[in-house]
Amino acid sequence: MKIAVLAGGVGGSRFLSGLRDAAPDADITAIVNVGDDMWLSGVRIAPDLDTIMYKLAGVNDEERGWGRVGESERVSAELREYGVGWPWFTLGDLDLGTHLARTHYLREGLPLSEATKLITQRWKLGVTLLPSTDQEVETWVKTAEGEMHFQEWWTRHRAGIPAQAFINRGVEESIPAPGVETAIADADVVLLAPSNPVVSIGAILAIPGIREALRSTDAPVVGVSPIIGGSVVRGMADACLTAIGVETSASAVAEHYGARSIDGLLDAWLIDTLDDGTDLPGITVATAPLWMRGSELSAQVASDALALARSLSA
Amino acid sequence: MKIAVLAGGVGGSRFLSGLRDAAPDADITAIVNVGDDMWLSGVRIAPDLDTIMYKLAGVNDEERGWGRVGESERVSAELREYGVGWPWFTLGDLDLGTHLARTHYLREGLPLSEATKLITQRWKLGVTLLPSTDQEVETWVKTAEGEMHFQEWWTRHRAGIPAQAFINRGVEESIPAPGVETAIADADVVLLAPSNPVVSIGAILAIPGIREALRSTDAPVVGVSPIIGGSVVRGMADACLTAIGVETSASAVAEHYGARSIDGLLDAWLIDTLDDGTDLPGITVATAPLWMRGSELSAQVASDALALARSLSA
Repeated sequence: MKIAVLAGGVGGSRFLSGLRDAAPDADITAIVNVGDDMWLSGVRIAPDLDTIMYKLAGVNDEERGWGRVGESERVSAELREYGVGWPWFTLGDLDLGTHLARTHYLREGLPLSEATKLITQRWKLGVTLLPSTDQEVETWVKTAEGEMHFQEWWTRHRAGIPAQAFINRGVEESIPAPGVETAIADADVVLLAPSNPVVSIGAILAIPGIREALRSTDAPVVGVSPIIGGSVVRGMADACLTAIGVETSASAVAEHYGARSIDGLLDAWLIDTLDDGTDLPGITVATAPLWMRGSELSAQVASDALALARSLSA
Repeated sequence: MKIAVLAGGVGGSRFLSGLRDAAPDADITAIVNVGDDMWLSGVRIAPDLDTIMYKLAGVNDEERGWGRVGESERVSAELREYGVGWPWFTLGDLDLGTHLARTHYLREGLPLSEATKLITQRWKLGVTLLPSTDQEVETWVKTAEGEMHFQEWWTRHRAGIPAQAFINRGVEESIPAPGVETAIADADVVLLAPSNPVVSIGAILAIPGIREALRSTDAPVVGVSPIIGGSVVRGMADACLTAIGVETSASAVAEHYGARSIDGLLDAWLIDTLDDGTDLPGITVATAPLWMRGSELSAQVASDALALARSLSA
């Protein structure tokens, strides 16, 4: 079974880890958001790709929720002493190893997808990671205080400055990375991970060609709601929804994605047992507990998403 | 008193440290070789500038002879795990902080001289460090096995592959960094540190304009021999001399630099008590112990070089 998953960082990493457990024989391809990526001091950071890689490699810091376990910050402490660096951005030493490996390949002229392939070879991930695009399409946030990179808005300002819009800089000139459209077209199931619908999934869907690939694949497209009990699991994502005029509710997010039969993307939508979303024309809705606290619960969510997909063709 | 010093890495760093001790009130400008500089994984390495900075800042590793004291290699261990990196090049974590600070400024579009100014602000060096040029003029080594960057030849192959020539790539298009020519012109004394005459001092002299500045300054130009008892202090430098057809002796190096009165650079030449170099037309020669083992001996060498300079105008 071939499964293609659109995914962002933390939510995506947990979902993919659960999916790997739930479908150990499946050929899973993750199409990963790159909108959070940025150049920091000449080094290319790709937070979502790395978060997913670390989680699937089992070297992520579960306690902290991000980055590598056993991390240190000797390099960034030096950078701060030199007056360089971002007090709001933690650049761990082990993590920096990944950034430098990526930067090495990029500066050699390889595209991000090739760099990602070479970097992920180190681990046995059991999931193929593809960046959504090889172009540098970064998400910027329009605010009353000016435009800033999403990372700065999210990490430095904790999404506390009202966002007026999210801009996918350079998206018009971008194309899906090699393998992305094929993965969607050839999939038996396409899943939208319970990632931020705006700046994770939305940034992937903004790449010209990806929305079309989702609409034209023969596979069922099943979304997993990132909302639990009318709240986002990861605190600040509601600020993103609010900015684009979408209510923080499972049904509003589903309507935002839209039904595939009426110009949208979803065939089915898995929502939490606490949420309401049964009245969504053109979308088959199922409910299940969606809180991915621990690997067993994550595998169950993935399993429920696959069951929902199967029910569509039954 | 204004002193300008042409300097390479380890020998230059010891000599400059001694000079700062010997002339605490002097305004010392070091014009530092950048031929060893290179891009590694998209990060700009400048070994000579850093070796001098660490030594003058008192954070160098005296025991190892290079790099930062208390160094670790967590990042480069990661890089190796990813299959990236140079087993022959040690990229310490603290050192990497310096490289990343420099890369940060360079990627922002600042020239190396500005980056160096900003980076050295962290420490109280008591010496102004100027790169010889802002352009990327890297020293490459021509061998029977092809051309390779000096770092690779020196650090990886331990200068063991016979060098046929040293090539200062891009030197024709380079100009001295801002302040270099003025420092030489305005100096009361110009010193050539006991650094490698070929790939350190030679690479500085290859920058168009620097040789002319030395020849036209009103200040006496005093060289300190890097030879002690017919040997180079730092093992492999004789391979560089051999490659350019210069004997490893104090007088041969002086002849290589030449007397200022006959198209060369030197007014005076300080040689070790073990060496012979009294018969050098146009060059005033003095002898003194030149082994800079420890700060007192280094200060004495610098003091003797200054005394030799004074003797010229007496």
